[in-house]
Amino acid sequence: MSLPSFVRLIEVGPRDGLQNESQPISVADKVRLVDALSAAGLGYIEVGSFVSPKWVPQMAGSAEVFAQIQRKPGVTYGALAPNLRGFEDALAAGVKEVAVFAAASEAFSQRNINCSIKESLERFAPIMNAAKQHGVSVRGYVSCVLGCPYEGAVSPEQVAWVARELYDMGCYEVSLGDTIGTGTAGATRKLFEVVSANIPREKLAGHFHDTYGQAMANVYASLLEGIAVFDSSIAGLGGCPYAKGASGNVATEDVLYLLKGLGIETGVDLDALIAAGRQICDVLGRPSGSRVAKALNAQ
Amino acid sequence: MSLPSFVRLIEVGPRDGLQNESQPISVADKVRLVDALSAAGLGYIEVGSFVSPKWVPQMAGSAEVFAQIQRKPGVTYGALAPNLRGFEDALAAGVKEVAVFAAASEAFSQRNINCSIKESLERFAPIMNAAKQHGVSVRGYVSCVLGCPYEGAVSPEQVAWVARELYDMGCYEVSLGDTIGTGTAGATRKLFEVVSANIPREKLAGHFHDTYGQAMANVYASLLEGIAVFDSSIAGLGGCPYAKGASGNVATEDVLYLLKGLGIETGVDLDALIAAGRQICDVLGRPSGSRVAKALNAQ
Repeated sequence: MSLPSFVRLIEVGPRDGLQNESQPISVADKVRLVDALSAAGLGYIEVGSFVSPKWVPQMAGSAEVFAQIQRKPGVTYGALAPNLRGFEDALAAGVKEVAVFAAASEAFSQRNINCSIKESLERFAPIMNAAKQHGVSVRGYVSCVLGCPYEGAVSPEQVAWVARELYDMGCYEVSLGDTIGTGTAGATRKLFEVVSANIPREKLAGHFHDTYGQAMANVYASLLEGIAVFDSSIAGLGGCPYAKGASGNVATEDVLYLLKGLGIETGVDLDALIAAGRQICDVLGRPSGSRVAKALNAQ
Repeated sequence: MSLPSFVRLIEVGPRDGLQNESQPISVADKVRLVDALSAAGLGYIEVGSFVSPKWVPQMAGSAEVFAQIQRKPGVTYGALAPNLRGFEDALAAGVKEVAVFAAASEAFSQRNINCSIKESLERFAPIMNAAKQHGVSVRGYVSCVLGCPYEGAVSPEQVAWVARELYDMGCYEVSLGDTIGTGTAGATRKLFEVVSANIPREKLAGHFHDTYGQAMANVYASLLEGIAVFDSSIAGLGGCPYAKGASGNVATEDVLYLLKGLGIETGVDLDALIAAGRQICDVLGRPSGSRVAKALNAQ
């Protein structure tokens, strides 16, 4: 299989990243981040999450962020909507694309959202209906695709089932997430091989965490399997909730560096991305989690 | 090409790693590190360097380190010997294997050792002769194989020439080093494809730096090209002299985690390796550069 000639990068820093940073940041800083990311050429930015601020205080103010960003034509500004209430709030905020989440591990589903995988999928039905009615597109996430913090191994067949359910429900794309970062390159290839027997490859995305240093090898392994959409986080924002102090989301800058090296187009400008990352790291008072950013900023 | 079933890990932390740490450490701490690494199952440890302490103060005391380590049967304890004087000192210290270094970039060779590549290779002739005479094996390193800090791109054909020269001179193995870490997976594959037309693949090793976050993808790319020997550094010891604060050598723990995931044998025990890394990081007062170590130590 030849490598894709174009890769879509899905920037999850403002949502998945900031959600896992201990320090909450202001609406103004979030808006500045989202606008810097769209200016850098990213075509999809996950801006926030419509959940109870009681559960995820970092995501408070997502509606204000949506109201204040400068919408660049051609850019999709997505939001997580875990339930109908969240979907309605997102809709009211002018959101045109939402994302829903299911786990590939029963234990994770039970512990995380207190219901079985099947029940969690059933709960999406009203969101899917409402989304269809309002012309909102829905992206699906599957978590724990290469391992679960509670039950260990997760079979590719189980992932394929959950992914297919989301796809059949109407998700236009399904992102497979290695939530705890224990996946390695061979398992990643096997996963996409199995799942793509159920869903067209071009409807799948890879979402890798660098907790065990494997994310970049897994991105490359996915590219070799014909996967052409990747979730990543500016400056590697977001840690790993299962190992404090460890790395989380793979950094967008590092993925872009790989893709540029492979001659794969993305439409994203590395220098502008580095600048966006530097800005948010200054706000958070943390070093960048991107090694490319560290190296270039050190020069 | 199928993945190798066994990979030899060449541990360069005590030499290449510590040499690039700003803080010098005692002979006793070096000895403890080397012994912990052999106990973890590593079959090759680059212990030190026989160079003038005026140039590389961190490598002072290499002879004492060799005198004090507990030599484990079957383990190779190597040392860098850049010239005949260094070789003689190594020999006097009981070293049975030395390594020599050449650059693939003319500009780097001139700036680093003040002579052309060809001249640097000619200077190895007396070392090779002496080594043969004393039954000492010689490993060759080529630096800047995927980029040079002074001249940028380096062609695979140029690397192939330097590597072949070292091989023909009597080096039993040639390690190709991405000194500045700018190489990406496609270039890595191309490099091994070109060089292995000149030298049998099983005589080649990969040496990757993670400065731009590409090392793990490059290791995987090399495995796909049939490369089965990798240099790596415990806890990612050693920074990048060309970008202060940036990552340097790929961490042994992270490479091992990948290999274990791929079902490739190494004979190395991950837990013992993590313990060895924790010990030296405590001595240096720095966090581990291994993401596997960070994740496991956080649990």
